[in-house]
Amino acid sequence: MKEQLVGSCIFGQSGGPTSVINASAYGVIRTALDSPAITKVYGAAHGIEGVLNDQLYVMDDEDPEELRYLLHTPSSELGSCRYKMADPEKDDTDYKRLLEIFKKYNVRYFFYNGGNDSMDTCNKISKYLQSVNYECHVMGVPKTIDNDLYGTDHCPGFASAAKYIATSCMEINKDARVYNNKMIVVVEIMGRHAGWLAASAALATAYGSGPDLIYLPECDFSMEQFLEDVDRLYKKNGQVFVAVSEGIHYADGSFVSEAKTSATDGFGHAQLGGLASMLAEIVKQHTGAKVRGIELSLLQRCAAHLASAVDVEEAFMAGKLAVEDAVAGNSGNMVSFERSEKDGKYVCNYKMLPLEKVANFEKKVPLEWINETHNGLKQEFIDYALPLIQGEPDIPRVDSLPRYARLKKHLANA
Amino acid sequence: MKEQLVGSCIFGQSGGPTSVINASAYGVIRTALDSPAITKVYGAAHGIEGVLNDQLYVMDDEDPEELRYLLHTPSSELGSCRYKMADPEKDDTDYKRLLEIFKKYNVRYFFYNGGNDSMDTCNKISKYLQSVNYECHVMGVPKTIDNDLYGTDHCPGFASAAKYIATSCMEINKDARVYNNKMIVVVEIMGRHAGWLAASAALATAYGSGPDLIYLPECDFSMEQFLEDVDRLYKKNGQVFVAVSEGIHYADGSFVSEAKTSATDGFGHAQLGGLASMLAEIVKQHTGAKVRGIELSLLQRCAAHLASAVDVEEAFMAGKLAVEDAVAGNSGNMVSFERSEKDGKYVCNYKMLPLEKVANFEKKVPLEWINETHNGLKQEFIDYALPLIQGEPDIPRVDSLPRYARLKKHLANA
Repeated sequence: MKEQLVGSCIFGQSGGPTSVINASAYGVIRTALDSPAITKVYGAAHGIEGVLNDQLYVMDDEDPEELRYLLHTPSSELGSCRYKMADPEKDDTDYKRLLEIFKKYNVRYFFYNGGNDSMDTCNKISKYLQSVNYECHVMGVPKTIDNDLYGTDHCPGFASAAKYIATSCMEINKDARVYNNKMIVVVEIMGRHAGWLAASAALATAYGSGPDLIYLPECDFSMEQFLEDVDRLYKKNGQVFVAVSEGIHYADGSFVSEAKTSATDGFGHAQLGGLASMLAEIVKQHTGAKVRGIELSLLQRCAAHLASAVDVEEAFMAGKLAVEDAVAGNSGNMVSFERSEKDGKYVCNYKMLPLEKVANFEKKVPLEWINETHNGLKQEFIDYALPLIQGEPDIPRVDSLPRYARLKKHLANA
Repeated sequence: MKEQLVGSCIFGQSGGPTSVINASAYGVIRTALDSPAITKVYGAAHGIEGVLNDQLYVMDDEDPEELRYLLHTPSSELGSCRYKMADPEKDDTDYKRLLEIFKKYNVRYFFYNGGNDSMDTCNKISKYLQSVNYECHVMGVPKTIDNDLYGTDHCPGFASAAKYIATSCMEINKDARVYNNKMIVVVEIMGRHAGWLAASAALATAYGSGPDLIYLPECDFSMEQFLEDVDRLYKKNGQVFVAVSEGIHYADGSFVSEAKTSATDGFGHAQLGGLASMLAEIVKQHTGAKVRGIELSLLQRCAAHLASAVDVEEAFMAGKLAVEDAVAGNSGNMVSFERSEKDGKYVCNYKMLPLEKVANFEKKVPLEWINETHNGLKQEFIDYALPLIQGEPDIPRVDSLPRYARLKKHLANA
């Protein structure tokens, strides 16, 4: 039997925040603190930037109760980054610096929590460390509201965002239909290349109070067809509710949000108000209807108060299992989710997937799940998304407002 | 003892939707259905418009279980309107028509649920019916997220919106501070003339995760002072979180949202993106910082999933007590709330206030509750708002999505 690797660990968070990324943080940190193989647990300030800058928080110093609050604290509590490391064969400066830090703190375990780019970073680090014969187990912990990671049924963070989007759409739908003089509402939802989040608005429709039309970046957008769709429904119902992905684009690949149209040309800078305002303005000029553009903005990715209990649990497990797998002697994997059923109920199976299989592939909404007219979702999507948004976590509150983790964040080099 | 007035009743909803206006609807409808003096309960489709158009739903036909779901269904389930009735001395057309409908259905009780304008409508109807000797008990049920009704400590609807705003600001604050390269966020909150809702963002700050700066329409806005405030904090913290009321205005009374500034002139139509985008753009040009403008939009007034249990209960009671007071022989009142304490805990006392005392006065945030620099709130506001947002109602859900009331809405004239 191979001797167990003993040393300290670093955990880092990367990319855009989610409602549950800190649940993964708790999974990693708690499990690492409890593991005899891991001598010290460091949290990198702002992901890989914190490693390169020697800004590491000592997690061993934190109050266990406060760490537990991470389960329901949105956004990346240790700070995040969008730093892209170079290819080590072209420029190994960052890798040398990283190795220096790893040696300084005897880091033998590295856990990185993020989306596509972060898994790529993780993979590069893993390979570099191998190439210089520095023994260190590197593990990826998936995270992205975009749900576009390859090789996993879904990603932690997606379901809570989806639940927020569906619930908010149900509420907006109720609100928008209240007057006799009805209106056309356009809601803009995150998702630059994959439409998973905008598709989630279909859950609201499936439950009787959602958008009439949903446009995803998986299909080319036609302004003509869009106006025809809106017109038809406006004439029929006197009211239309539209959901669009921020990444909808024309057939030539140009984003609708960036395009000049007759409606925006006159005003100049369409970007100022965003896609929802722009489309609402176009619809207003076309139909004469009262319109409202609504951008769900940051709210959709940090609304921990409406998180899915399934998502919180899976995010926590992803972190925990990454540590357990690494301590068991493995490296270069990402925790991935596989869906199965038991007694007709959704079950999530956790698997280890080699990082190189994940890195830099983008998973999109299958075209078979999008309706023929490219303005709505089929039942297949509902069946996919519904089990993921289940359960209301027991959110800690003080005076009916959320109680977030308050970490000391002692710097290791202080 | 006076003989009890027996006949049918009409209930109507008016003005902007809230998270709890249907809780008041349930209070009125349930109590009216249970009252021997009330022979039939009608719900007006789109408020007074439904009365004038003879569009009345028969509430007696509804399933009691479905009616109960109204407690947690946002927006105005019967439909709302913004119809302003003329002064009867100038034009009594609408009043004659109303009387005709009241006679047709033997309406002896009229309950109207709304804000300032609705209480004014209620008052006019009450006086008109008296002037023509038609015996009918008219009662106002308060509602407005704006919290600007005179003669009541607070209004149903405000607290749930306040809770949503505070919680969302706490989440946004967490999200906005996540990168090393931090940003300036401007959140736009409803409130054209009174700043109660924007002030509620201070609850987030009081609980450790909220805006640094809050601007209300109660004070004149100075763009110079605003940029100085933002600049100072940006230099100090590298990050600023600003909350503004949509109704902030310059000393000359012109709304900031409508003003042309050097930042918007070039682009033309500032209104396209709204106040938040406009201020964010100005701040960006001034500081060079990464910025984000966020408009809470309709979400803040219809987020029943985050309602305050105190608000739901009080909204229900306002409806119930309006019926009880009317059946007891009174008329021309609005249910109002008075705050007291018992064993150090908040208690709401319900009182009847003559409608003429309410109509057309606007209650604003007291200047003594706003800080000296006019960019934040004092503890007095926190003490005022905090008891109102307490408690998480037991929201009915199906598959973890909200379950709203499904009414049959049988028309009385069908």
